[in-house]
Amino acid sequence: MKCKILLNNNFDKGLLLAVLISIVPIAVGAETVAKAENLEPAIIHQAQQKEAQDKLKAFEKKSKKKPNILVFLVDDMGWGDPGVYGGGEAVGAATPNIDRLAKEGLRLTSTYSQPLCTPTRATLLTGRLPVRHGLLRPPQIGETGGMEGEITIATLLSDAGYYTALSGKWHLGESPSNQPQYNGFDEYYGFLGSTKNYTEWRDPRINASLSNNETIVETIKNSPNFIKTLVKARRNQPHEALYELDIPAVANVDIDLMNNSIDVIKRMENQEKPWFLYHSFGKVHFDNYPADGFQGSSKAKGVYQDAVVEVDYIVGQVMKALKETGQDKNTLVFFTSDNGPETDTWPDSGYSPFRGAKMSTWEGGVRVPGIAWWPGMIEADRVSDGLFDLADLFATFVNIGQAKMPTDRYIDGIDQSSFLLADGGESNRAAVYYYMLDKFSAIRVGPYKQHLYVVSPAASEGIPGYINGSTLHKTAGLYVFNLYLDPKERRPYGIRTALITKQLQGALKKHKATFEDYPPKILMTLE
Amino acid sequence: MKCKILLNNNFDKGLLLAVLISIVPIAVGAETVAKAENLEPAIIHQAQQKEAQDKLKAFEKKSKKKPNILVFLVDDMGWGDPGVYGGGEAVGAATPNIDRLAKEGLRLTSTYSQPLCTPTRATLLTGRLPVRHGLLRPPQIGETGGMEGEITIATLLSDAGYYTALSGKWHLGESPSNQPQYNGFDEYYGFLGSTKNYTEWRDPRINASLSNNETIVETIKNSPNFIKTLVKARRNQPHEALYELDIPAVANVDIDLMNNSIDVIKRMENQEKPWFLYHSFGKVHFDNYPADGFQGSSKAKGVYQDAVVEVDYIVGQVMKALKETGQDKNTLVFFTSDNGPETDTWPDSGYSPFRGAKMSTWEGGVRVPGIAWWPGMIEADRVSDGLFDLADLFATFVNIGQAKMPTDRYIDGIDQSSFLLADGGESNRAAVYYYMLDKFSAIRVGPYKQHLYVVSPAASEGIPGYINGSTLHKTAGLYVFNLYLDPKERRPYGIRTALITKQLQGALKKHKATFEDYPPKILMTLE
Repeated sequence: MKCKILLNNNFDKGLLLAVLISIVPIAVGAETVAKAENLEPAIIHQAQQKEAQDKLKAFEKKSKKKPNILVFLVDDMGWGDPGVYGGGEAVGAATPNIDRLAKEGLRLTSTYSQPLCTPTRATLLTGRLPVRHGLLRPPQIGETGGMEGEITIATLLSDAGYYTALSGKWHLGESPSNQPQYNGFDEYYGFLGSTKNYTEWRDPRINASLSNNETIVETIKNSPNFIKTLVKARRNQPHEALYELDIPAVANVDIDLMNNSIDVIKRMENQEKPWFLYHSFGKVHFDNYPADGFQGSSKAKGVYQDAVVEVDYIVGQVMKALKETGQDKNTLVFFTSDNGPETDTWPDSGYSPFRGAKMSTWEGGVRVPGIAWWPGMIEADRVSDGLFDLADLFATFVNIGQAKMPTDRYIDGIDQSSFLLADGGESNRAAVYYYMLDKFSAIRVGPYKQHLYVVSPAASEGIPGYINGSTLHKTAGLYVFNLYLDPKERRPYGIRTALITKQLQGALKKHKATFEDYPPKILMTLE
Repeated sequence: MKCKILLNNNFDKGLLLAVLISIVPIAVGAETVAKAENLEPAIIHQAQQKEAQDKLKAFEKKSKKKPNILVFLVDDMGWGDPGVYGGGEAVGAATPNIDRLAKEGLRLTSTYSQPLCTPTRATLLTGRLPVRHGLLRPPQIGETGGMEGEITIATLLSDAGYYTALSGKWHLGESPSNQPQYNGFDEYYGFLGSTKNYTEWRDPRINASLSNNETIVETIKNSPNFIKTLVKARRNQPHEALYELDIPAVANVDIDLMNNSIDVIKRMENQEKPWFLYHSFGKVHFDNYPADGFQGSSKAKGVYQDAVVEVDYIVGQVMKALKETGQDKNTLVFFTSDNGPETDTWPDSGYSPFRGAKMSTWEGGVRVPGIAWWPGMIEADRVSDGLFDLADLFATFVNIGQAKMPTDRYIDGIDQSSFLLADGGESNRAAVYYYMLDKFSAIRVGPYKQHLYVVSPAASEGIPGYINGSTLHKTAGLYVFNLYLDPKERRPYGIRTALITKQLQGALKKHKATFEDYPPKILMTLE
């Protein structure tokens, strides 16, 4: 019977595993409970959940207002880049402001994004995996995007009384209905694509064969639906074009976004409403151009490292505004990145100690910095390796903002407020599901990670570069790593973890079952 | 003329470089000055040197005594293992006590050891590179060692009025003249070899074909000069054998060493003499056996990770004794490891984010944790990537202990007291010279590292394992990395650093010249 089920599951090598594994139960994955049919089951820690809810109640009683929420999303920053993650001074780009957030807050060592930009952004805002929200890759110049029918955390927080603002990169579609101001944001100030969309056809140092070809450049410039300017918009109103995003403008755009975020924070100082500010950097995505005054600002003097220094400076300035307006005690801050470092454009590239890079579900592609900060509410100088998916921000903010959780769709994000708020709180997440485009590529439970698909770089294992010409390989099912014993995923040892792999399969099955009642938006191969 | 000189230098590809490089001077390496002919030239930072010496004078005036010195040397711990270096919680083995040292002190991100055990130990004690002190590899069972004629920091500090004690591993020779008590230590409590010398022929789980072979076991057991017990000794007196180092004894030996170090610290509480305590761990060298109570103590539940937890516990207990006896303000503490993680015995292995491992001069083999702690004297919560070689401990302790620097031999260590003690102090070291056995294998100046020889693991680049069957390859001279832009040494780009490589060659030449007046002890190939 067991074998039959496994065969029906259509897992490769399921039969092999069924033969290898014993029936002895091993407590790798914790018991999980779903609060509702459409919610990802979570680990219940009753005591810490009570502690967190009590803290939130006491907070509201004292401050007479729901807490503000500020998210810093850096583009393409590696897990290893900030000093507190082992980078910083060690890689020639000190990050004192990011490090301070960690020292005053909770540093998560196992925060997971999607392996690339747009899928992560949509997941963060919708609490749903890419196969559910449907945005598997970035919309290219002229493509409209795909937020139709999705509900964002901005919408839910608005409905719960929040003022919502987005500063920066959107990259979820440029057509009106896909723009932020039609997706829950009261105000928007930023750019709709990726910085490189505005620069790479303009810079002969980067892409001479393209930028020197007038015909191609004209075609790009005149692409229908291509919005080449910084834009500004108010809820449900068409955007206003502000200035052309040429190279000098892109170089300085993050400083402009910083000023905008500081302005939002100052404007909200004496408002009755709590607020949600999503600060979405253009940097440190290639191609990085230094803002005025930042060229050579890092000790490394690298284009990328100067961009890290700029991002760190901006974090410091925004945090300063928060403190100066007396809102620091009332604001939950979360700092993270949208994927691992992108390595094809080295040396304009980030750093991760892990294997792989952006566009792979090796840890290097999806393990990102994750720092939660809220003085008085989140214990200072704490570190945890509890599992945290950026989808969890959605569910966590729903709880903290007392918003209404959707009931008509599956939500993959888990409410992690008790993990963040309770002293010594533990993660409420039992498993991380990794997706590479439409492929369910890996699963992690505890330190165990089973790869179903792996990406190899084009040239050789030795040289990173996971975008141009990389290839996707199906594994034989025993490609299992223990991320504690082998953080760099160099020693597959499924043959030693057969007892555990069974439990991973249990989690796989449960995850697969969620697609039966809630079919994915795009055709996906479940393997 | 230039070409001729380069050819005479006998550098491979010197000619090629000479053609490529321009004559434009680039300030990569700082100017250095040698205080004496036999001393490695150092970068002079006058203001910080004055600040440091003033601090030391004020300290002595106040405490009426020279400062104590405590060195923690862990065996085979990786750069990535402690939490503050990006490991800890992230790899399932939290290190709160080591992390605390860093938070209260100075964390160095570029501390260099030798690529293996014994060479590092002798370098730390003599301030000299392995080709000068002659100990290129560990003495094996029955081999006598080679400290004859060397002067240790223990001897110099003794002469300067210090009480000197060694707790733990020696591994610089077992014959009487090579033992610690004949090399400057007033007392010794520890073992003379490596822990595995006592266990690997005893454990059928590890080495059945050997341990089950009675003839071989008898031969090992009865090897002449093989001291199989924990020993205790007083200066210039023969050692006393305490107990047989069988597997249960080795499992618990680090706890025994801890108790001994605590005892030394307590005994020194009210003594007139300042003291030097060298605490040299048996762990986390393979094969790790958990001390009583430590099995499964790490979150990872790994044999190695449990050993890390034990080491961290011991650091905490020794530091507690220091505080309880009121000596914490009077003691400079330095925490480090003797080489990078050893990866052939995985999963009983450490972690480094860098390429390579023990027995290679990739960064993974030689970049080690380095934390300097001295409350009130060393600024708290500071991080620096300034170059620091473990040979520098020798020269730094000579200055701090006001000992007499030898004049009859070349000293490679640089006095780094101003780097450690001045607020925001910078390193006094301009270059690191890497040696792989007798080969001058690489040089680092600033972030630039040029490999002359590299070690490749036996199987493939993907699978670590740098001892068994690894091979040594001569490079073509342009194998240059920028460790800021490419911390994992994956993107050689000598063709982009030809202007800089010239400066590396300048440093190479200077280093080579030191062997003319001070010939190396063993035959070495200078390439």
